[in-house]
Amino acid sequence: MNDTIKTIAERFSCRSFTDQVPEDKYLTTIAQAAIQAPSGMNRQYWQVIVVKNKKLMADLDSEGMAILSHLEDKTMYERIMKRGGKLFYNAPCMMVIVIKEASPKGAELIDCGILAQNISLAATSLGIANLHCGLVALAFVGNRANEFKERLQFPMGYEFGLGVLLGYAEKAASPHAPNPDKITYIE
Amino acid sequence: MNDTIKTIAERFSCRSFTDQVPEDKYLTTIAQAAIQAPSGMNRQYWQVIVVKNKKLMADLDSEGMAILSHLEDKTMYERIMKRGGKLFYNAPCMMVIVIKEASPKGAELIDCGILAQNISLAATSLGIANLHCGLVALAFVGNRANEFKERLQFPMGYEFGLGVLLGYAEKAASPHAPNPDKITYIE
Repeated sequence: MNDTIKTIAERFSCRSFTDQVPEDKYLTTIAQAAIQAPSGMNRQYWQVIVVKNKKLMADLDSEGMAILSHLEDKTMYERIMKRGGKLFYNAPCMMVIVIKEASPKGAELIDCGILAQNISLAATSLGIANLHCGLVALAFVGNRANEFKERLQFPMGYEFGLGVLLGYAEKAASPHAPNPDKITYIE
Repeated sequence: MNDTIKTIAERFSCRSFTDQVPEDKYLTTIAQAAIQAPSGMNRQYWQVIVVKNKKLMADLDSEGMAILSHLEDKTMYERIMKRGGKLFYNAPCMMVIVIKEASPKGAELIDCGILAQNISLAATSLGIANLHCGLVALAFVGNRANEFKERLQFPMGYEFGLGVLLGYAEKAASPHAPNPDKITYIE
């Protein structure tokens, strides 16, 4: 098992971060790994936004919680309140992947996932824990959507794709158990 | 630069494969890396179909070309005919990622991309060249769609996501040059 295969096997979804912000040199390395992702026809219909500002992280988190608290179905809101009330599990920073608005969206979304995994694996290889967090989207659906798009400097014509929370794990967790039934061999 | 970062940096889109089929032990390792991919809520709404059958590879390729040849816009068909007439660049095998049909499809498509990149990076780390190939989709849109879905053993309620061609590179190519403007830092 080489180091890349090992990184893939060891990567876990971190749901408990310390306050420590990853060093700038690591964030730069991870962001550079991100933009090395292949994309359909090499169109690179994405932008990687590295959010290190604590106030912005906190504001995105609380806006997401506010949106959840106003949903008719309170299940998600109550679940998060029970585990400390923080949407982002106290992660000190994240990378937000935004993608070009287009129709049909299929290719852009697949490319977004490809790039997200470069972020996760580069981070894991550097000892930085991470979590793919779709709920970052909440900040961009409410009344304050435009405010947050501006503060994150969304390029014109781009929309939210996926957030990847980054930081150091307060406690390590196990990766999910791979299910071998998810592989079919056609000989 | 650790080995994972190096694999990410060195991975290239291979458009020229030799006949040599990757060893079974490598394909197994790559498929196992694939299903270690994280997915939204760990739903794993995907299936990895490892296609090693030469006849099936050839039939998928020629069906794709037949579909292209019947399009009103012949640009793609003519471009491929000029470079040898093979949709899959002679790749001897591939992994087809199929995803659960659902609405909205956003999350499944992102998860498909995440898994695809595990395949590409695991393959690259083992010296196996690869290409994300959306054109594999063509075999599943024409009159023979159901025949091919059966031969690939698509699980009920699943549809094509992405193909990843695998093999050995006839000639190595360079990765795309990363564009640093694709990164925004919000301090």
